[in-house]
Amino acid sequence: MAEMCVGIDLGGTFIKFVATDRQGNASEILALPTPTDGGADGLVEQMAAGARKIIDTAGLSSEQVLGVGVGSPGPLDLKAGIVIASPNISGMVNVPLRDMVSDLLALPVALENDANAAAYGEYIAGAGKDADDLVVLTLGTGVGGGVVIGGEVLHGAHEIGAELGHMILVPDGEPCGCGQRGCVEQYCSAKFMADRTMARMTAEKPPTALRAIFDTKGSIDSKDINEARAGGDAFAAEVWDATARHLAMACVSLTRIFDPDKIVLTGGMAKAGSDLIDPVRAHFADLHWAMTEIKTEVAIADLGSDAGAIGAAGVAWHQFGS
Amino acid sequence: MAEMCVGIDLGGTFIKFVATDRQGNASEILALPTPTDGGADGLVEQMAAGARKIIDTAGLSSEQVLGVGVGSPGPLDLKAGIVIASPNISGMVNVPLRDMVSDLLALPVALENDANAAAYGEYIAGAGKDADDLVVLTLGTGVGGGVVIGGEVLHGAHEIGAELGHMILVPDGEPCGCGQRGCVEQYCSAKFMADRTMARMTAEKPPTALRAIFDTKGSIDSKDINEARAGGDAFAAEVWDATARHLAMACVSLTRIFDPDKIVLTGGMAKAGSDLIDPVRAHFADLHWAMTEIKTEVAIADLGSDAGAIGAAGVAWHQFGS
Repeated sequence: MAEMCVGIDLGGTFIKFVATDRQGNASEILALPTPTDGGADGLVEQMAAGARKIIDTAGLSSEQVLGVGVGSPGPLDLKAGIVIASPNISGMVNVPLRDMVSDLLALPVALENDANAAAYGEYIAGAGKDADDLVVLTLGTGVGGGVVIGGEVLHGAHEIGAELGHMILVPDGEPCGCGQRGCVEQYCSAKFMADRTMARMTAEKPPTALRAIFDTKGSIDSKDINEARAGGDAFAAEVWDATARHLAMACVSLTRIFDPDKIVLTGGMAKAGSDLIDPVRAHFADLHWAMTEIKTEVAIADLGSDAGAIGAAGVAWHQFGS
Repeated sequence: MAEMCVGIDLGGTFIKFVATDRQGNASEILALPTPTDGGADGLVEQMAAGARKIIDTAGLSSEQVLGVGVGSPGPLDLKAGIVIASPNISGMVNVPLRDMVSDLLALPVALENDANAAAYGEYIAGAGKDADDLVVLTLGTGVGGGVVIGGEVLHGAHEIGAELGHMILVPDGEPCGCGQRGCVEQYCSAKFMADRTMARMTAEKPPTALRAIFDTKGSIDSKDINEARAGGDAFAAEVWDATARHLAMACVSLTRIFDPDKIVLTGGMAKAGSDLIDPVRAHFADLHWAMTEIKTEVAIADLGSDAGAIGAAGVAWHQFGS
């Protein structure tokens, strides 16, 4: 009898669902909109409905489902299975999400932080699937982190570890929303690259093709910067390269700390693919120590935005599958 | 029947020996000089002689000794039990240290990097003994690191992890012997604080009581700087505080990454005790994010230079004791 685990990735816009087998082979992903007006009960009902649909579509009886993994934005209390707060999802304050989903589905549920779930997804089925030790950086509005060491997700003593976007990259640097200064997030996220670029366009008035885009759209994003760079815009090229170099610096520190097989970049900015990874690798080689040859590969993620759901299912396998 | 493991800490000047029981209770430490003229064979004979003496003094039969742990400077090949090189100990190039010691003593031997062994010693019997997750920074000539997560020493995929002294603290900062720039080691080690201070005394000619010491001794060290600071010297106070602040910055990053229960400072500079930890804690509180209260304690090590031998015995317990 085939056994499966279900993974649920709770996002601000969509909830994604998947079923995976013991080897990490995944069903098609189901995406349902995240309800915005039913509070926690509405969310949990949508999560249960999607899970049932995934189970039905796969032709599974519920006896064949060993458990369900849920990846959620946080902060979470993992031991208690509670979402303490989740700024982008309404109604998620002190919600015992693990037990609510478990009650509705009559299945055991494991809760994991969404960035960790995505890292675990890349570890079991994506760019890190041949790695023992993996570090994942998610480059989106902020910079999220996930670390897997010998198959175990790094949580920390108080479940607030692997916040790699809040390593201090530049002493006394740009103020960060977290209250620190100079965080990785302020130099390497898509949002902050765009914000910094717009601020420099105002302050320095460089000649750049980005100005026309800004005048039309009222803002620019990291994709605009990369396209202008590809089109020969010197200012855009400088901004893009500075971001790649800051990312490479963070990757050097993470290599010294974790000595992982791989560091995988994911999130919106990683969609640039080789336009991002090529300069990051060049700077990484330049900044890396001379004591040993480079043994850590920096790479783009394989699973993109499906990693969270696949990793959530993997977390369920890890907890209920043995 | 009491069971013990023996720990050996191989240093450039002394080899230290200890026996510990399952709970980490330690015998008196035996220190023998590190032979400088007998090559690897002479070293291994001294290691075996000291181990036998520790076993005799404790009144143990060799049946009561479960195994021996050896902490050695590296780089090492831990899987093969080989010292690849050890710059401060003559004759240690590609030496199969684990098997050589094991053959002489007819006991199983576990090899560990000396910084990791010291971290593990603090974890089982020192300042980290109530911690699940512990980070140790050794502030000496360089800055060494050791990380214990849930009872397991962090090694990395290629056994070159936990090199916390080579995290990049200052982008494009001071060149480091490792080939990188701006490493933690260049801002937080006793040696580099003294070197930087002497360079500034030459370049900036500040009024300072350190000049008389320099003129007498031909150099100054971190202890001189701290004593001048305590005596009211403004330049020394500025240097000392800048070092404490850089250390605190590294501790903030390590807290975001590992979320440990404790970060423990050891090595020569940590002998300054509260003179060091008080300003480090003040800067740590100032630089730490506002997202959560401070949950990681920064503290001075308990075991000082005995941590390596005690931790080496602990490594043997970990490997042979269950």
